[in-house]
Amino acid sequence: MKQFFYPRSVAVVGVSELPTNLGRVIVNNLLDFGFQGQIFPVGPRGGQVRGLEIVPSVLELPQPVDLVTVLAPALIVPKILDHCAQRGINRVVVESGGFSECSEAGRVLEEEVRQRLHDYGIRLVGPNGLGLINLEVGLCLPFAQIPLRPPVGGVSVVAQSGGVGANLISWLAQEGLGMNKFISLGNKLNINEDDVLAFLLEDDGTHIIYLYLEDIVDGRRLMDLGQSATKPILLHKANIGIASAAIARSHTSALTVDDKVVDAACVQAGLCRVHTQADFLLAAKALEQPPLKGNRLAVMSRSGGQAVLVADACQRWGFELPPLSDRIQNLIRSRSRAGIIEPINPVDLGDVYDFSLYRDLMHEFCRDPVYDAVLLNYEPLSDEEKGVARDTVQEQIRLAERYNKPLVIAVIGELEEQHYFRKEIGVPVFDFPEEAIQALALARQASPSTVANSPAIAPALELTAVSRVLEPHLYTPGSLSLPIALEVFQSLGLVVPEWQLVDSVAAAESAAAQFNCPVCLKMVAPSAVHKSDLGGVLLNLETPKAAAQGFAQLQQVAAQRLPAGEDWQALIMPMVEGGIEVLLGARRDHTFGPISGGAV
Amino acid sequence: MKQFFYPRSVAVVGVSELPTNLGRVIVNNLLDFGFQGQIFPVGPRGGQVRGLEIVPSVLELPQPVDLVTVLAPALIVPKILDHCAQRGINRVVVESGGFSECSEAGRVLEEEVRQRLHDYGIRLVGPNGLGLINLEVGLCLPFAQIPLRPPVGGVSVVAQSGGVGANLISWLAQEGLGMNKFISLGNKLNINEDDVLAFLLEDDGTHIIYLYLEDIVDGRRLMDLGQSATKPILLHKANIGIASAAIARSHTSALTVDDKVVDAACVQAGLCRVHTQADFLLAAKALEQPPLKGNRLAVMSRSGGQAVLVADACQRWGFELPPLSDRIQNLIRSRSRAGIIEPINPVDLGDVYDFSLYRDLMHEFCRDPVYDAVLLNYEPLSDEEKGVARDTVQEQIRLAERYNKPLVIAVIGELEEQHYFRKEIGVPVFDFPEEAIQALALARQASPSTVANSPAIAPALELTAVSRVLEPHLYTPGSLSLPIALEVFQSLGLVVPEWQLVDSVAAAESAAAQFNCPVCLKMVAPSAVHKSDLGGVLLNLETPKAAAQGFAQLQQVAAQRLPAGEDWQALIMPMVEGGIEVLLGARRDHTFGPISGGAV
Repeated sequence: MKQFFYPRSVAVVGVSELPTNLGRVIVNNLLDFGFQGQIFPVGPRGGQVRGLEIVPSVLELPQPVDLVTVLAPALIVPKILDHCAQRGINRVVVESGGFSECSEAGRVLEEEVRQRLHDYGIRLVGPNGLGLINLEVGLCLPFAQIPLRPPVGGVSVVAQSGGVGANLISWLAQEGLGMNKFISLGNKLNINEDDVLAFLLEDDGTHIIYLYLEDIVDGRRLMDLGQSATKPILLHKANIGIASAAIARSHTSALTVDDKVVDAACVQAGLCRVHTQADFLLAAKALEQPPLKGNRLAVMSRSGGQAVLVADACQRWGFELPPLSDRIQNLIRSRSRAGIIEPINPVDLGDVYDFSLYRDLMHEFCRDPVYDAVLLNYEPLSDEEKGVARDTVQEQIRLAERYNKPLVIAVIGELEEQHYFRKEIGVPVFDFPEEAIQALALARQASPSTVANSPAIAPALELTAVSRVLEPHLYTPGSLSLPIALEVFQSLGLVVPEWQLVDSVAAAESAAAQFNCPVCLKMVAPSAVHKSDLGGVLLNLETPKAAAQGFAQLQQVAAQRLPAGEDWQALIMPMVEGGIEVLLGARRDHTFGPISGGAV
Repeated sequence: MKQFFYPRSVAVVGVSELPTNLGRVIVNNLLDFGFQGQIFPVGPRGGQVRGLEIVPSVLELPQPVDLVTVLAPALIVPKILDHCAQRGINRVVVESGGFSECSEAGRVLEEEVRQRLHDYGIRLVGPNGLGLINLEVGLCLPFAQIPLRPPVGGVSVVAQSGGVGANLISWLAQEGLGMNKFISLGNKLNINEDDVLAFLLEDDGTHIIYLYLEDIVDGRRLMDLGQSATKPILLHKANIGIASAAIARSHTSALTVDDKVVDAACVQAGLCRVHTQADFLLAAKALEQPPLKGNRLAVMSRSGGQAVLVADACQRWGFELPPLSDRIQNLIRSRSRAGIIEPINPVDLGDVYDFSLYRDLMHEFCRDPVYDAVLLNYEPLSDEEKGVARDTVQEQIRLAERYNKPLVIAVIGELEEQHYFRKEIGVPVFDFPEEAIQALALARQASPSTVANSPAIAPALELTAVSRVLEPHLYTPGSLSLPIALEVFQSLGLVVPEWQLVDSVAAAESAAAQFNCPVCLKMVAPSAVHKSDLGGVLLNLETPKAAAQGFAQLQQVAAQRLPAGEDWQALIMPMVEGGIEVLLGARRDHTFGPISGGAV
C-alpha cells in the first residue's frame, strides 16, 4: 500500500481540455493540495491543463510512474491496464464506475480486469470509487472537488462509499479534526479493507482509523486485525438489513452480512462499532484526548441545568461522578459566598464570575488521580464575558495537556463560539454536554486497551476426544441424549457436575449416597425431550432416601406418560446452585465462518 | 397565564444604574425585543436606564401594572409582594435565587412567599428562573442576554432550568426554527408545568411544546393533559438517576421520579419523550412538516453511500421504502443512460446532472399516495453546482407545500450550505440523512394522532366484587393461593379457563371428563409455592384416565415432598395453548399514584 499513498509520480488518465471533464478535477486537486511529485495528465485529445501537457496515452508517458489513476470509460480500462503492464506500472486506481455495481455486462468486464491484474501482477484500488488522499504529501486523487480541507492530523478514513468518505472529509474540517489519509474502496475488486487496515495499523501518521464498509470481505481477517490493533478502529458497518441490500448492491455491489454477527465480532475483536456518521465524529473528537484510564469524571458546568443533563448522561453511558475531596470542597467554600456553589460533582459554577476558580479547580482535578477525565461546560453569559471565557478555556486545555488528563469541552449555545475553537484554535469541542459524555463512552469502547477486557476468542481445541464421543452417534437421528451431551462437554474440558445413570430405586439411593445431597433426578428417554413438562425432573432431593422415592415417582411418570415399552433411565447428579441457564446455537456464516449465538 | 404572556405593562424590580446590574439586562431585553407595552424600572437608588426613569418602589409606580418582574435579593421578595398586593398587582415573576434550592433558610423564606401568594391571591412564576418570553408581543424578561433570537414561529419552550431553556433559544435560532413563547419555571413554587401546558395547549401561536422538567409535580395531571393534547408535546424529563439527584436538587430543588414510570406514562399519555437537547431539535425540525400519515418514505439521494445509510436508518427507525411504481421507473429510465440510475427506492441520483429530474420525481412522489413523506439528500458536487442545486431544493420545498407532503432535507457536507437554508431561507435542514430519519421517527411518536394507538388507561373498575373475594383473606399471612387468585381475576372481569379443585383420583377423573381434554393438574398447598420444582405441575394430560393417573402421581409427590400432614388439593383446568406468561407487580408512586409493572 505504501506505493499507493506515497507515489513519487502520478499519471491521471482521462483528462481533456473540455470544461465538463472530471479528470481535470483530479489534476486540480493534486496541484491545489501541493503534491510534490510529478504529475502527468493523460488523454487521447491532448492539449494542456494548468500548464501541464496532456499525454495521449500511458504508452507515451515520458517515464514509468509509481501510480496511474484512471477516470476513463469502463470499457477501455482493460486496455489501459495493458498499457500499464507494458510500461512496468503496477499500481493503479480506477475511479470509473460501470462495473459489477451496474449490470451483468459490467460484471463480465470486472472479471476481465481481475484476470489482467492477476496476469500482470498489478494492484488496483476501486473501481467505482474516489481514489485516495494522503495529506502528508499532498496526494489528492478524487475526481470531486474537496471544498473543505482538514488540517493534517491523525484520523485516516477508509470508505467503501466515496460519497460517505467525501462527506466526512468536510466534517473533519468543520469539527477541527485533523486527517491523515483517505481511501475510497469502491467495488474492492483487488485492494480491500484488510489490505488498507494492515497498512494503516503500521502507519506512523495514522492514530485513529475510521472504516466505512457496506460488506466485509473476510470476517476472520478483520477480527485478527482488530485484535492486533494498537490504535482505535471505528467500524461503521452499514447495509444492515433488507431495505439496504438493494441500494448497497447497486452502489458498491456489496452483499449483506448478518448484523448480529458483525456486532459480536466487534466485541470479540475490540472494534468499536459506530452506527452513524455523527457518532464517528463524536468518537473521533474524544479520541483526540489521552486514553481514558477509568470511568470517573469531574465536571465543571456554567449552567446547573446542563450539569443535570451531564449527570443523566453519565448514568446512561456508565460513568461515575466521584464526590469532591475535602480539599476541593474547601477550595470551593473559600471562594464563594455561602450557598452559592454547592461543593458537589458536577460543580455548578453558574453564579461564579471569578474565572480563576475554573483554573484552580482544574489544577485540582488534574492532580487528583480519582478523576480519569474532566468535562468542562463552557458558556459565556454575556458578550462582555467572551474574551475572558475563551482565555479560561484555553488555560484549561493547557493544564490538561500538562497533566496528560483527558479533557472534553462542550461549548453551550453559540455556534460562533464553537467555530472559534474548532477553526481558530483547532480544538474539537462538542455542541452539547450529553454528546461529550457519549463521545467518551465511544472512545472508551474504541480504545485498544479495552480489548484485553473483551471476551477471548476460544483457544484451539484438541478435537480427538470430542470426535471419539460423537462418532458412534453421527448417524443417529434426533437430538443427542443428555448423558452423551454431558460427555461431549467433558471431552471439551468443560467442568460438569458428577453424574450417573440409574435404572432402579436401589441404584438411585446408592448413587445419591455417593454424591453430596441434595441431588436431582432427570428422566432420560428418547421421547422425553421436554422432561419438566412430563414431571420428569425432580430437584432438591435432600437425602438418599428421597432420591429413592424420587426414582419411584419417575417410574409412575414413565408408566403414565412415556410411549408403552420405551426404555428409560434416570440421570442423577448433585444440585448446583447459582449459575446462568444458557441456550446456544451455531451455524456457518459466509463471511465469518463458524459462529454461535446464545440466549441466557 | 394569559396575563403573564400578554401584559400591557411591566415593572422590573431590581434595576440600578450600576454597570454590573442585571436588572438592566431585563429592561434592555424588553426594549430590544420591541415590547409595545409600558415598561417601569424599579430600584431604590433611582436614576435612569435607557431613558426610562427608575421608580424607587412598587408603591410609587405611577399606575398598577399587569406584571411585576423581580430580580432583587431573595430576602426582600416578601416585602415586594406586600407592595404588589397594596397596588392590586396579581402577577409576579421572581427570577432571584436563594430559596429552597439553596439552604434551609431559603426554604423557610419560600414558605413565607407561598403564604403571601395564598393570602393575596397572587400568581407567581419562579423563583430561581429566567422568567418568560413571548415573541408575539416582544415580551422578554430573562436577566441574561439572548444573543441569538429565533424568528417568530410555532415552538414554545417550557423549561425548569433557565440555562437549558436559554441554550435552546440559541439553537432554535441557529437551526432556522421559529419560537413562540418561553417560560423558565425555576422552583415551581406556584405556577408549574401543568398550568403552563394547559395554557399552551389552547394557545393559537403555539404548535409544538417542549417541556424540560427535572421533576414532575403531578404525574396524573400531566398524563391527562397529554391525552387531551391536539399538538405535539416533547417531554424532556431529566434527572433520571442517583448521580443526577444531588445536582438537580441544588439546581431547582427537584426530586427524582422513577424513570421507568415516566417512560410508561409517556407511552400511555401520548407524550413523546426526548432524552437530549439534540433529540428535541431533531424532532422539532421534522414537526415543522405536515403530520406523517404512515411509515412509507420516498428518498432521492445525490450520494449512493448516503442512500445506503438512509435505508439502514429506515430499518432502525421502522420506516418502509416502497418500490417505485412502473410510472416512476419509466420516468427514470427515460431520463438516464442505461444502468446509470437503478430505478429503486432510495433513488441514487449521484450521476445525474440534469436537475429537472429531481423536480419531476418530486412531482410523482408528491402525487403518489403510496409515499407518506419524502427525504431529499442534497449535496452540490462542485461550486458551480451550488446555484442550481439551491434552486432545485427550493423547488422541492414549494412542491411539497403545494401537495402538503412532509419533506425532510439533509444537506450533505458543507455547513455553509446548511446555514444558507436555515438562516436565509428559514428551512430547518438536517446535517445527516440518518438524523432526518430519526427525526421523522420522533415526530411520528410526538404526533397527537398516534395517541389513539397507545394503550388505553384502564377504565374505572367496579370494585365491590373484588373486595368480597379479598375480604376473608386480608389478614392471612403469605401469598394468596392459586384458587383465590383466580377468583380475584374473575371478579375483575378477566377471562380465566374453567377450573375445579379436586381431592381424589375419582374427582380428578370426573372433572377432566367435564372439561375438554387435555387438562393440567397443579398442586395447591401452602408450602408448594414453586410447584414445578416439586413435580407438582402435570401438563397435557390427554384423557380423564390420564388425569386420574396424574392425581395418583401428585399423591406420591405430596407424600414425599410436602411437610408431613400438610393439607393439599389439586387444581384441574383445561390446557390453554399460546398466550404470553406475564409477571405483574404494583406499588404507589409519589408522583403518579398507583402504578404497576410487568415482565413477559
